[in-house]
Amino acid sequence: MKKLNIRELAQSLQLSTSTVSKALKDSYEISSKTKQRVQEAAARLNYTPNPYASSLKKKHSKTIAVIIPEIADNFFSLAIKGIQSVAETKGYHLLIYLSHEKFINEKLIVAECSSGRVDGILISISEETISPEHYLKLTSEKIPIVFFDRDFENLDIPKVITNDYDCGYMAAQHLLERGCSNPVFLSVSSSLPICAKRAAGFAAALCAAGIMAEQKIISCTGNGDATVAEIRELLVSDHQPDGIVASVERLAFQVYLVAQENGINIPDEIKVVAFSTVETAPILNPSLTTITQPAFQMGKAAVELLFKCIEKPGVDLSGTCIELPSKLIIRNSSSGG
Amino acid sequence: MKKLNIRELAQSLQLSTSTVSKALKDSYEISSKTKQRVQEAAARLNYTPNPYASSLKKKHSKTIAVIIPEIADNFFSLAIKGIQSVAETKGYHLLIYLSHEKFINEKLIVAECSSGRVDGILISISEETISPEHYLKLTSEKIPIVFFDRDFENLDIPKVITNDYDCGYMAAQHLLERGCSNPVFLSVSSSLPICAKRAAGFAAALCAAGIMAEQKIISCTGNGDATVAEIRELLVSDHQPDGIVASVERLAFQVYLVAQENGINIPDEIKVVAFSTVETAPILNPSLTTITQPAFQMGKAAVELLFKCIEKPGVDLSGTCIELPSKLIIRNSSSGG
Repeated sequence: MKKLNIRELAQSLQLSTSTVSKALKDSYEISSKTKQRVQEAAARLNYTPNPYASSLKKKHSKTIAVIIPEIADNFFSLAIKGIQSVAETKGYHLLIYLSHEKFINEKLIVAECSSGRVDGILISISEETISPEHYLKLTSEKIPIVFFDRDFENLDIPKVITNDYDCGYMAAQHLLERGCSNPVFLSVSSSLPICAKRAAGFAAALCAAGIMAEQKIISCTGNGDATVAEIRELLVSDHQPDGIVASVERLAFQVYLVAQENGINIPDEIKVVAFSTVETAPILNPSLTTITQPAFQMGKAAVELLFKCIEKPGVDLSGTCIELPSKLIIRNSSSGG
Repeated sequence: MKKLNIRELAQSLQLSTSTVSKALKDSYEISSKTKQRVQEAAARLNYTPNPYASSLKKKHSKTIAVIIPEIADNFFSLAIKGIQSVAETKGYHLLIYLSHEKFINEKLIVAECSSGRVDGILISISEETISPEHYLKLTSEKIPIVFFDRDFENLDIPKVITNDYDCGYMAAQHLLERGCSNPVFLSVSSSLPICAKRAAGFAAALCAAGIMAEQKIISCTGNGDATVAEIRELLVSDHQPDGIVASVERLAFQVYLVAQENGINIPDEIKVVAFSTVETAPILNPSLTTITQPAFQMGKAAVELLFKCIEKPGVDLSGTCIELPSKLIIRNSSSGG
């Protein structure tokens, strides 16, 4: 029996190919009566879908979604440039979404991205994200997904990360070498894995130097004004730290503002290191010592992984983890000692 | 003759309501044969669409799209906070998209937002946007749209802007008062109306002081490295300006970096004013004089206008323009003179 293509099947039913295609995929847009009619005809007339055509159709959006948690951090700006550098050579567009650090927004965006609207998704998770069902729904729909920088742990989804634990260790060690005896780590989230890893590395370096790490991890999880108040309380307390590792750049800026307002000298009274790629680091007063992530390269590596999945639908990259190291760039905020 | 609803019309045709609805809207997804069949039946059976049901359906998404051009500018971070402050009291979610200053991305995003997926759109246009068809398509689909900060001129679409012309004037006047005789304006785009207005105000202040404004508007439209090269050439030239107004904050940062690299003292050799809401302005070396936009209030006012359109579908706000003034905050980068 000669095999029909979908157009011939549709003609025999006096329906559009789009209606037939949706009926075969059990789409909610099609009535159950029509679905039954289409499915019976497909069986009777020996129609089988052409997987190559279907894969071609899937590729048609030529769009990748990039979901990032926040706007006020230079890391994501650079990572997007890295993603763009590869996507444009492939003729792909980026649809960039901000979750604004909210789990509920992230779920809304991921739902927007399903149903073939995009060919793949790159995501850096929000601070609040506590469960992975929305990612798993995508993988079950065969929509490729790659984490970059901030991943959800213990999933098989491919990812591109940096050496956060080592860098937390390196930042603490640098402050100790510069003479600090009471450094603290300002954490932006206790649940976010990258922040927890940075804090764990920091604590390990303190332990190795015989310093109790307890009470050295300070949580600054409030919004702008609340965080400034927390930092103010910390810096003017009797137990003022003599060194700070800021887990994100905005906490370092807030430390600078509070220090300026209270006449506290950086680096003489307190030394500062920040996880940051911010371009203004060299022109701050004083210039800011940073742990600088390879943001552009991380974006590039993540989208390259994603294209492997998009271009070879059957490829198995589960469990793939690419780690690109960050580096310490020493400037005046940690000088002396 | 009794009027049918769409479900009854669909039943009489043995089609799904979705297929009938799309056929009536002349959707490309439906074959022309089916369209003709549906349209004939609708005429014969006296079917007319129910506008109330359609309006109720439209309201269902409880989602607003916010389309912004760039990520590395603090203005948008603050404006989104203003938008969020109102949206959350109404139980609305934000879907935030970045056009990344590309016209093609903006069109892609706007297309994503049509067809009732969102209840309304707030947009600040990209540097490259040169034609308004994609906005007009939205208004023809009755999707409310409000511009904030960066508007497309000569349209009736409501907008919330700031006094860019006056601020360009004020920035130039401030530099002249501080003793500059050869100030320049660094423009990020010649086509973007807000940038053109800032430049026009700057030029007017120079003219009022008897200074030729020709060749004082410098175009810095390249990407990062190209812009740095342009600024370097400007600052080490024989005709080095003694004052700079940066139309966006990243140009001011690049001026600082080039000045630092070439041992040029700010403010003694060159004074700097930037259009910026950046929180690091007070902690830069030297602290940066800014024209600060009321970003939070602008976001809030824009979303309030949008809710007026969403909540009263018939309301006519065409031509509405709310202008919230920016202010000059004097810091050390323009001191002396």
